[in-house]
Amino acid sequence: MEFKNTKKTAVKGSTSNIPLRFVAIGDGVTKNLTVYEYGEDIIAVDFGIGFPELEDFGVDFIIPDMTYLLENSHKVRGLFITHAHADHFAAIPFLLKELNVPVYANKLTQEFIKELLEEKEFKRFKDSVSLHLFDASTNPVSLGAFTVSAFHVNHSVPDSLGMVIKSPQGTVVHMADFKIDQTPVIDAPIDLEAISRIGEEGVLCLASDCLGASKDGFIESERSLDETFPSLFGELQGKQIFITTISSNISRIRQIVDAAIKAGRKVVPVGRSIEKSINIAKNLGYLPFSDNAFMGVKKAEGLPQDSLVYIIAGCFGQPGSSLDKLSRREHRHVSVKKGGYVVFSSEPNPPGTDIAVGRVVDNLILMGVEVIDHLNRNAMHVSGHGHRGDLSQVASLVKPKYFIPIGGTIRQIHDYAKMIGKLGFNENSVFELQEGEVVEFRNNSAVKGKRIEVHDQYVDGIGLSPIVIRDRGLLSTDGVLVVVVPVSRKGRQRVGKVDIITRGFIYVKESKALLGKSRDVVNKAIEKDGDIANNWGGIKTNIEKDLKKFLSKETGREPLIIVHSIFI
Amino acid sequence: MEFKNTKKTAVKGSTSNIPLRFVAIGDGVTKNLTVYEYGEDIIAVDFGIGFPELEDFGVDFIIPDMTYLLENSHKVRGLFITHAHADHFAAIPFLLKELNVPVYANKLTQEFIKELLEEKEFKRFKDSVSLHLFDASTNPVSLGAFTVSAFHVNHSVPDSLGMVIKSPQGTVVHMADFKIDQTPVIDAPIDLEAISRIGEEGVLCLASDCLGASKDGFIESERSLDETFPSLFGELQGKQIFITTISSNISRIRQIVDAAIKAGRKVVPVGRSIEKSINIAKNLGYLPFSDNAFMGVKKAEGLPQDSLVYIIAGCFGQPGSSLDKLSRREHRHVSVKKGGYVVFSSEPNPPGTDIAVGRVVDNLILMGVEVIDHLNRNAMHVSGHGHRGDLSQVASLVKPKYFIPIGGTIRQIHDYAKMIGKLGFNENSVFELQEGEVVEFRNNSAVKGKRIEVHDQYVDGIGLSPIVIRDRGLLSTDGVLVVVVPVSRKGRQRVGKVDIITRGFIYVKESKALLGKSRDVVNKAIEKDGDIANNWGGIKTNIEKDLKKFLSKETGREPLIIVHSIFI
Repeated sequence: MEFKNTKKTAVKGSTSNIPLRFVAIGDGVTKNLTVYEYGEDIIAVDFGIGFPELEDFGVDFIIPDMTYLLENSHKVRGLFITHAHADHFAAIPFLLKELNVPVYANKLTQEFIKELLEEKEFKRFKDSVSLHLFDASTNPVSLGAFTVSAFHVNHSVPDSLGMVIKSPQGTVVHMADFKIDQTPVIDAPIDLEAISRIGEEGVLCLASDCLGASKDGFIESERSLDETFPSLFGELQGKQIFITTISSNISRIRQIVDAAIKAGRKVVPVGRSIEKSINIAKNLGYLPFSDNAFMGVKKAEGLPQDSLVYIIAGCFGQPGSSLDKLSRREHRHVSVKKGGYVVFSSEPNPPGTDIAVGRVVDNLILMGVEVIDHLNRNAMHVSGHGHRGDLSQVASLVKPKYFIPIGGTIRQIHDYAKMIGKLGFNENSVFELQEGEVVEFRNNSAVKGKRIEVHDQYVDGIGLSPIVIRDRGLLSTDGVLVVVVPVSRKGRQRVGKVDIITRGFIYVKESKALLGKSRDVVNKAIEKDGDIANNWGGIKTNIEKDLKKFLSKETGREPLIIVHSIFI
Repeated sequence: MEFKNTKKTAVKGSTSNIPLRFVAIGDGVTKNLTVYEYGEDIIAVDFGIGFPELEDFGVDFIIPDMTYLLENSHKVRGLFITHAHADHFAAIPFLLKELNVPVYANKLTQEFIKELLEEKEFKRFKDSVSLHLFDASTNPVSLGAFTVSAFHVNHSVPDSLGMVIKSPQGTVVHMADFKIDQTPVIDAPIDLEAISRIGEEGVLCLASDCLGASKDGFIESERSLDETFPSLFGELQGKQIFITTISSNISRIRQIVDAAIKAGRKVVPVGRSIEKSINIAKNLGYLPFSDNAFMGVKKAEGLPQDSLVYIIAGCFGQPGSSLDKLSRREHRHVSVKKGGYVVFSSEPNPPGTDIAVGRVVDNLILMGVEVIDHLNRNAMHVSGHGHRGDLSQVASLVKPKYFIPIGGTIRQIHDYAKMIGKLGFNENSVFELQEGEVVEFRNNSAVKGKRIEVHDQYVDGIGLSPIVIRDRGLLSTDGVLVVVVPVSRKGRQRVGKVDIITRGFIYVKESKALLGKSRDVVNKAIEKDGDIANNWGGIKTNIEKDLKKFLSKETGREPLIIVHSIFI
């Protein structure tokens, strides 16, 4: 205790008036980005993608708002990546396009980043990107006022990192996604000794994963699935087997390959993400099997199916994924036979996926395929996120003055805060932050700073603005109605009949009367203030207003109304 | 065994060549409708609504396809309703609008139907509707070749019915949603004696609920929640409490009211569905409490909040529901205070609801409200659908020659079939049916008949066709692009410039070049075959085709393209 207090005093010693700022820019669970700022220095942790929600119509994915980094670009010293999951690194090319910041990441993450940079869009600057190896074995990195080092944690991808960020205001321990696993499949157990040592040195703040904070006890070890695949392959001798899992779960893939070799089956990766992941993992030694253990998907077509195990992408039923295509008999190279098996070794129903997964499963069953998953078999999956047991143990070892739960929903953040209260810490020592919120640390105390504005940045292959997404929302429920008003080039008068075209609103064949009346509404609005030459803007607004009111009354719907004049 | 065989022979005695037809028209889980047909007689069981899926843009709900009933309207003798759940009865007015068929239902269902008929749309024929009391206590009803009687089953709404449908080809036992509950809250335990007796008489086919067929063991009794609310109210003395549950779960409401009275709190129903349900249940004696136990929502505003318990609609986070409004501070009459509690006593995350519920919960937590649900407390809900234990027991008592699992997904239907196999029945005795599929029973054997065509019937306040829904789908992801071609009334030539208007596709301000090039594509397509007078149709198709190809190549998107000529 003596020792601990002495050390803590060292932290308290800081009397600088420059605050250490913690800026939460990600949305909680995905598109992770945290900014640490001290005076003229900024470092960022993670830069991942997010996944569109229902009302983000047509959006492929979302990237973190980089405005704050760009506005302060002269301060940005480096970007540190915690682990090789897309929601923590996959938006990096979009940042690098705007700002050539040095990136610090482990080997695995670096290989995935290099893959991304091969995309056409990024090729022209990929050679100027500065990637630095950074993991639990490398030396601390000093960038401006910050010194950053890493320690090993467990997660569902190997070699994940916790970070120790030292600043003149004190030390922050940043632990994105993690669990405590004493018997992981590929890498070592989480380095609790290092965490304990850092805790003894005195920690100002712990930024901790909280995704599992609503769940009691400890999460199981990845090794608890060791018997799953050998016994499955034993039972399913003579059968065709597909296994679907998330492509980044390399230790799961290792367990499957291991069991496949013992069962005399060759592994056939199906789907770009799985193939890429297996290739990278093989090259880095995470999958220590000979090439002979694997087989290409085209070659596999003609072979006895009971000599193979397919590992197929699309465990969340993603439309267009290999598994989705398989379930519709639309995959070009593989097909599942009647009497074959599809095995889900993946998280059961993460938010927003249940309907897509249900459809894939139903389609498979209609094809005479048997489905094995958490509903009919135990030990099919363990999560990479610690439960309250894991989270409490780490919090107790780090024993910081302040806590910032990260990587969770508002509810999970709140449950983490309650957990901290029960551990005997001051419940007020937890900052429950939302996107854009800021905590400022100064002289060993902390207050909320001024929130910064954060907006979703949509990516859909073409540049997108929030207005476009909003319009798609309107179009999706009520359709569109276009009013074309022919106007004479000379004199600017209406010449000829107003035309109305509509789609996705009403069934035109059965709604002639409604469209006729709509035309009357438009004509009246034009006549009300017929000076098209000088007041087209006003007339246009009137048409929109009157028509909206009329249609809403008649149909209860409000289609997107476009009023367009055509000059003749 | 002797006895059983003898009885079965009685069924085998039928030698009529007219088949008994079982036509599955509902989609499995919702919008239930089953048609039984024998020669010139048809009876239907249930006529409920379905709920739109993601791609049913803007649809409020779906009703069963009534084409088969209308095409055979001269045969339709009666409609029997199994229980008072919307997915089993709420589409009835739409059928009655087209066909005045006698409806047989229990008291509770009748009251709900009467409520529906009060809607403006149905008022003009509501007085000619012929409603007949039909439940476990009424005499068998003979309609044409059919004789129908009912027995009592348990479910999450009181007085649910199983049906015995006797036809010249044998007896079908029709058991929609049910569970075995030896200690229900309101009504009696399921009448296993009656079921056993019917089984002994010999049953041709059991049409059985299968929603719980993927789950092991027996579902818990509704009474297992008896302690839930008293202990909750004990712990939350002095606190504001909202409880949300599904409005039709009258026994749950009874448990809440019971506990509220003992805790000295008055019950405040919030939301139309909850108010309606409580009113009807009170009038029928299902809620034997004095009016004094309840309080109107407006009156409650000014009272001490710890003297009340709100029962609020919207347990699945439905947008626009009372709970949704409460969580956004948009409810006109009630507001939840900081430190208040919202308790979910409802099914955790039925398909497609997790994101909506998550948002409501997160909003509440941001308001400083505590949420209690299955994640942090046991015994918050029990299902109304039996698990494999319940389903097996009933199957063994009925011991029919054939089985048709109903009311489940394709997977649940398949799991029911596997369960039947394990019970020692012939697995081939189970018909796994999809929408529109038909089973024909003749001389004690059964075969699949010719599948009939079934289409979703959308209801969204205005009549909807599938084309409109399809267009909304396109609009929702890729937006719309309108091409206006001005054409001279005389001579039918292009006069003036082609105009292009777009919404929800690209951000116009940043895409002037793309729109310019699109105009070139249109002009070229017109010039290719410039005879607008004689070939506008062909030109229009060319414009659409060329533009689609061009935009897809440039942007990877395919907006809905509308080509419109305007005559001047």
